[in-house]
Amino acid sequence: MEFNTVAITPWEAEAFVDYDRLIKIFGAKPLTDSEIDLLKSIVKESHTMIRRRVFYSHRDFDKFLEAYKSGKKCTLYTGRGPSGNTHLGHILPWIFAKWLQDKLGLDLFFQMTDDEKFWHSEGGEFEYFNSLAYENILDLAALGLDYRKTHIIINSEDIRYLYPIAIKIAKKITFSIQRATFGFTESTNIGMIFYPTLQMAVAFLPSELFGEPVEVLIPAGIDQDPYWRITRDIATSLGYPKPSQIHNKLLPGLGIGGKMSSSKPETAIYTTDSPELAYSKVMRAYTGGQATAELQRKLGGNPDICPVYKMFEMLFEEDDEKLIERYYACRGGNLLCGECKNALGERVAKFLKEHQNRRTKAVNYIERYLIRDKFTPPIIKRIEITPK
Amino acid sequence: MEFNTVAITPWEAEAFVDYDRLIKIFGAKPLTDSEIDLLKSIVKESHTMIRRRVFYSHRDFDKFLEAYKSGKKCTLYTGRGPSGNTHLGHILPWIFAKWLQDKLGLDLFFQMTDDEKFWHSEGGEFEYFNSLAYENILDLAALGLDYRKTHIIINSEDIRYLYPIAIKIAKKITFSIQRATFGFTESTNIGMIFYPTLQMAVAFLPSELFGEPVEVLIPAGIDQDPYWRITRDIATSLGYPKPSQIHNKLLPGLGIGGKMSSSKPETAIYTTDSPELAYSKVMRAYTGGQATAELQRKLGGNPDICPVYKMFEMLFEEDDEKLIERYYACRGGNLLCGECKNALGERVAKFLKEHQNRRTKAVNYIERYLIRDKFTPPIIKRIEITPK
Repeated sequence: MEFNTVAITPWEAEAFVDYDRLIKIFGAKPLTDSEIDLLKSIVKESHTMIRRRVFYSHRDFDKFLEAYKSGKKCTLYTGRGPSGNTHLGHILPWIFAKWLQDKLGLDLFFQMTDDEKFWHSEGGEFEYFNSLAYENILDLAALGLDYRKTHIIINSEDIRYLYPIAIKIAKKITFSIQRATFGFTESTNIGMIFYPTLQMAVAFLPSELFGEPVEVLIPAGIDQDPYWRITRDIATSLGYPKPSQIHNKLLPGLGIGGKMSSSKPETAIYTTDSPELAYSKVMRAYTGGQATAELQRKLGGNPDICPVYKMFEMLFEEDDEKLIERYYACRGGNLLCGECKNALGERVAKFLKEHQNRRTKAVNYIERYLIRDKFTPPIIKRIEITPK
Repeated sequence: MEFNTVAITPWEAEAFVDYDRLIKIFGAKPLTDSEIDLLKSIVKESHTMIRRRVFYSHRDFDKFLEAYKSGKKCTLYTGRGPSGNTHLGHILPWIFAKWLQDKLGLDLFFQMTDDEKFWHSEGGEFEYFNSLAYENILDLAALGLDYRKTHIIINSEDIRYLYPIAIKIAKKITFSIQRATFGFTESTNIGMIFYPTLQMAVAFLPSELFGEPVEVLIPAGIDQDPYWRITRDIATSLGYPKPSQIHNKLLPGLGIGGKMSSSKPETAIYTTDSPELAYSKVMRAYTGGQATAELQRKLGGNPDICPVYKMFEMLFEEDDEKLIERYYACRGGNLLCGECKNALGERVAKFLKEHQNRRTKAVNYIERYLIRDKFTPPIIKRIEITPK
């Protein structure tokens, strides 16, 4: 899907797009005070990513919360395509998912799409992407996700949880639907063509595992929305509830435009970067500042296009007042980019140091997160065959 | 693939095609005395289906036999798409596979493609096709296949044996390859598009399970050849031996032209037909005879286009001399169709009675055949990830 020459598919997404127009194109709804108040009425507190509309758009988030309130079985679902080490753009929705999980006490199903990333890659052995999945789990563990309620599906190894559901999904989707939704062509490999059935299948898996219709909320980047549109289209005909979504904006990279991306490692901060390296990446970041300190003092900077400011807004400044202070100090020319980057760099370095300590410890208990040790795969009901 | 307006794809195949020309189009080799003598030198006897060229074409059958002679690990592979009850056309290659298994002492991997048959069907719940797979296993058991050496993969339930291999296969195949090989279109569902990877994966599975390169021979209908051409094309690049094939002609139905097919149940004999019903189907068969007994005596019949004669030749007459006798008695006008059909009908009824007795007993030991209780699925090797 093209948006103002900015591509938004799950494999090509930019940051700093016109998110409001994107909602209209995708047919989702903006997150309004009504949903925010409903959430607050349940969890009794707010989250910066909601207040600041980092999560800014949704489908049926209100219905999901109402279902939760009425005591219906609810779960969360998100995931990761393990194409490299985890960077801050990846963990943004995980942090929010963890918060929701903690506040609502929900099971979270987490999909690791090692198959998809292999199929989408230019090169590299499959085993590399599978191994990356295990690396990436360390970051979930380091963020403190509760392993008793977090169930990770690694597609290549846990396919038996998904395949019986994917079989039914696949029958409802033709190549021309895939072409229209994902931009596939004649030269797309048949792994990529089939893959969406597996991402969709997880939305229906909780209903199979718990043996009742389960409401599923998917917190994930807006770039994943094409999957959920098809999923919602076919859910009812397969006897499952339509999954709800809450979409986050994509964390910008530290360069000029574009989301934080593994394809531009110098502008991405990985959870495995040393604190020193991360600090120096921040210090080299593109900003919304003026060419010289003098001009900056005179004209002020532009935080609205500044990835350094966005990092504070989306991840590294909990305090709303301090964020606003920073915004106007920049606008008014009272805050220079060097100072601002130094402050961010220090926070990032501190976060990484602590995260990496937890990550190292997590090596010993990765297995606790895997679905395969916790749930029996869906069982196919046998029916009586009468000879014809 | 079109052949003289007679379609030959795995889903649309006719009998009575020009098999010699088909070999050329497919690029396989005719089975010659050289391969037959090689087989005989190993097993010390012959099989009617080989002598009579029911199995009539191959790829590397000679190399497979040489590998066997030299002590290399070898296995067999065939399968079934459970779209209905089993008919005689299905069990033809199974009978030969059992003979090979017994004579060569080989493991046989047997795939039940319940997913494919659901994807290909006009209607019907998925569970129906899955349940049919279990029904069809009863026929394998009734034919006496050795459960210690016969390992059945039901795709929907045993997908974890295939998926890690299918992932690598799928990356090498584009939609346009599928279009050219299988005649898929924009409106083909993405299950069908992905499916071939799973049929191919079984050809590589023995190498994974036994941890060494395993030579695989696939006895199956010539209509399955498109799968094996692609499989052979990509085998080496994935590090597996190219599987060998030996192709059988398709058993004709009892009507005018066409293979025995579940789409024409009145001209197909199912293993679940009562002996009486089967007898009456045979008595109503189309034949190569003349319009009247008088004309038949005068002009003789044509066994070459006669499904009743073909049934004797392909399945129900062990004795070569008696078969030739029958052929010339028909040609010379000395054998009338009623008499010939009666003889076939009685043999078919007798076979079914015995088969059904064994089939009923088999209900209690189906599980012994399932791969899931016998082999550990392929394990994905983890590799060291260095942070980038």
